[in-house]
Amino acid sequence: MHGRHKDFIRIQGAVLLILAAAMTIPFVLAMCFEERTSAFGFGTVIVFCIITGLLIRGLIKPSPEKFKSRDGFFVVSLTWLVCSIVGAAPFVISGAIPGIADAVFESCSGFSTTGASILSDIEVLPKSILFWRSFTHWLGGMGIIVFIMAILPALGISGQMVAYAETPGPIKDKFTARFSDTAKGLYKLYIGLTAAEVILLKIGGMSWYDAFVHTFGTVGTGGFSSYNTSIAHFTSPYIQIVIIVFMVLAGMNFNLYYVGIIQRHGLRSIFRDDETKFYLSVMGLATGVIFIYNGILGGFRHAGTTLLGAAFQVASITTTTGYATENFDLWPTFSKMVIFALFFFGGCSGSTGGGIKCIRVLICMKLLRRSFSLKVHPNRVVPLSLNGKDLSPDVVIKITNFVFTYVAVLFAGTLLLALDNMDFMSTLSAAATCLGNIGPGFNLVGPVMNFSGLTTFSKYVCSFLMIAGRLELFTVFTLFSRYYWNSNRV
Amino acid sequence: MHGRHKDFIRIQGAVLLILAAAMTIPFVLAMCFEERTSAFGFGTVIVFCIITGLLIRGLIKPSPEKFKSRDGFFVVSLTWLVCSIVGAAPFVISGAIPGIADAVFESCSGFSTTGASILSDIEVLPKSILFWRSFTHWLGGMGIIVFIMAILPALGISGQMVAYAETPGPIKDKFTARFSDTAKGLYKLYIGLTAAEVILLKIGGMSWYDAFVHTFGTVGTGGFSSYNTSIAHFTSPYIQIVIIVFMVLAGMNFNLYYVGIIQRHGLRSIFRDDETKFYLSVMGLATGVIFIYNGILGGFRHAGTTLLGAAFQVASITTTTGYATENFDLWPTFSKMVIFALFFFGGCSGSTGGGIKCIRVLICMKLLRRSFSLKVHPNRVVPLSLNGKDLSPDVVIKITNFVFTYVAVLFAGTLLLALDNMDFMSTLSAAATCLGNIGPGFNLVGPVMNFSGLTTFSKYVCSFLMIAGRLELFTVFTLFSRYYWNSNRV
Repeated sequence: MHGRHKDFIRIQGAVLLILAAAMTIPFVLAMCFEERTSAFGFGTVIVFCIITGLLIRGLIKPSPEKFKSRDGFFVVSLTWLVCSIVGAAPFVISGAIPGIADAVFESCSGFSTTGASILSDIEVLPKSILFWRSFTHWLGGMGIIVFIMAILPALGISGQMVAYAETPGPIKDKFTARFSDTAKGLYKLYIGLTAAEVILLKIGGMSWYDAFVHTFGTVGTGGFSSYNTSIAHFTSPYIQIVIIVFMVLAGMNFNLYYVGIIQRHGLRSIFRDDETKFYLSVMGLATGVIFIYNGILGGFRHAGTTLLGAAFQVASITTTTGYATENFDLWPTFSKMVIFALFFFGGCSGSTGGGIKCIRVLICMKLLRRSFSLKVHPNRVVPLSLNGKDLSPDVVIKITNFVFTYVAVLFAGTLLLALDNMDFMSTLSAAATCLGNIGPGFNLVGPVMNFSGLTTFSKYVCSFLMIAGRLELFTVFTLFSRYYWNSNRV
Repeated sequence: MHGRHKDFIRIQGAVLLILAAAMTIPFVLAMCFEERTSAFGFGTVIVFCIITGLLIRGLIKPSPEKFKSRDGFFVVSLTWLVCSIVGAAPFVISGAIPGIADAVFESCSGFSTTGASILSDIEVLPKSILFWRSFTHWLGGMGIIVFIMAILPALGISGQMVAYAETPGPIKDKFTARFSDTAKGLYKLYIGLTAAEVILLKIGGMSWYDAFVHTFGTVGTGGFSSYNTSIAHFTSPYIQIVIIVFMVLAGMNFNLYYVGIIQRHGLRSIFRDDETKFYLSVMGLATGVIFIYNGILGGFRHAGTTLLGAAFQVASITTTTGYATENFDLWPTFSKMVIFALFFFGGCSGSTGGGIKCIRVLICMKLLRRSFSLKVHPNRVVPLSLNGKDLSPDVVIKITNFVFTYVAVLFAGTLLLALDNMDFMSTLSAAATCLGNIGPGFNLVGPVMNFSGLTTFSKYVCSFLMIAGRLELFTVFTLFSRYYWNSNRV
């Protein structure tokens, strides 16, 4: 076996040990709630993870070879695959989700922070299983990124290369120095955000259990709830507003929090960022437009509820969380179209949100504005800038490439899902919501529906789209490219 | 008035005289068929055009000022507007299409070679009116381009600048020398193609009238028919195959015909062109996939009919013609998705087809392939080439800009049409089919439906989308840009 390939497997050994550690929480919960089959499920998987993990760490020795950029792609994709499969095991073994395709779908949806579900009735499931389901969001969202960033250097492997493949969105400032420290800082911020939301939700009257489950779904921009009616279960406007605020916070760039809070440059710098401004403006505009349109149709009888509903749904879709307080599928077509347009924005770079990411959409818009100017003044030099700095043509090309790939994968995914012969909108929105890590789509996969009606093949297609979307496409797709394998052979 | 602005109006004088000349054909037909109200309609408009045209030509003197690039945008947009409004007048005056929004829609659809209609029952209309309706396709498709190319130099204005704004698709080889000669050559080719199809359709048993009407729709890649059931009216496979062949021919680059036939470089060069190969491959692949899928579902009971139906619909949509022999809206979702994907290909550059154009899609695909290679080998230089020549980064940026603008306009158009509160798919496909100059969409605007159910506002939105799509977006949109008007003031 190739030296670097040994390292790939060593890392998976560590991943298994981390998963075992993570599963002890739902295992303990299962014991407390006396959910025996769940406890058996978690127990089995924990034992398997510890034994296999330790065997791998013991038998395979670290290689002196250095990682190459393309190895990062491989390790990250492999890690996500291992997490999704091992994470699905407790669902199957406990009998909570007996079908393998269903369990893998749910696990992929969790670790990719999508929040799409194949469960028709969530509330019948054991509490420990639902806790694990939501906990995968927390782990997946930013957790695993930080885990890998913080742990890989400890394994003697520079995390830099891996992070290049993984950090969601274009990296703004490279963390060249003290990489591990930065990762730990991000980790603290993530836990801080989690703690704050749990407490605020608890104050709002949630049980500790519900507060944790819904915080995992929010902070990871995932969207799994422990209730069939999602956040509509909680009628308190306070709870809905807290969740809106934390969805929006989770969709913002964590690097900016790091600079602003950990490096004490102040919170203002966060809101001076062009991407943040764009992200907040898009949500503000969409909320306003939907509020006015739905409001006019409803005669502004319940203006407060209409506004809160619009704000919640807009924040939920833009941040790619996917929680619902209303069934937007029943909205008039115009408001639905606004929501569908938001499917293609996504969170900020460096956030736990998925999708195309605001920074890319913003740069595409700047490109468009420049092109108009160039049509009229072919000889004028109009640089593209972000945060006052000119963007290199190289960065611009990478971004346009990403957007084209995104659209191409969306088309391909839609075509494959079309084999199920669902209606057009269900098919298109199912592919878009999985690829964008959002959660709900329209019609048959709408906010009050689920993915249980899909064929096994389509469930795997969706699982693939969720992971490909989460790993920013290229990470996964370069593995299918002959360039990758040809160059490995050399 | 600014000197150049006088020239803009002088050109419209010529356009009016051309329209008067064009309308004499349906006027004569109306006399022959004894359709008095139509004859009155055409007669009135002809008299108006001649008087106004001559007045403009007589009163406004040519300006010595030279045209600038941006003036081309203005003249072309103005010409299309004048044609669409004047072309709608006979519909209204004759009472055939009494509503102004309806008549403008139909005229825009004709001149933009879209083929979308607001008519629920086509066959009740006078024959001369239906002839004019189809003739606008012929004039619009390539006719007006060639008209302007051939006539503007005769007015003492170099057609070069205008052609830059108008020739559909990226120009391959600039016609620097003997511009007017080239235009006349293209004109001959267009008439030759028209004559060939008319004769072949006549041989197939069509009346001369039907042969002309359907040739106009085919060669202009328009799609207006004189029958409610479109080409399904003609059950003869021969006629369907002739129309397929001529749709495909009309969707190919006329510059290649010019080089191959007029300049006698041989027909082989046409098929050596990368764009042509891509265009034919896309249609071949789509036909094959739909044939196999629809065939399997139908047990290959009528394999010949299934294949012909698939080939016809694929050719019709890819070339943006819009004729129908089957209602593809009743196909299974997978086949519908393939058709919907073809909405975003379009004809070749330099053809009468609309849409994004094959060359742009091909270059985007090449960009994608390169980006994968770059991800794995960041330092390798991989040039983008077409027909063996490297593409400049400038051309690539123009093409990605176009695609982004296209998507942005599609989103904006969809949002505006969504105010009608049709279902999602009808709304999205209505915007896509108008912008791509195709004709039919899905559901409420499907192949056997029409646009009569839209509100007046939406009909104008669609009319705008059709013209914007036909003029390659930038031509129209630069007029809305403050750069255009600011620079004119200077």
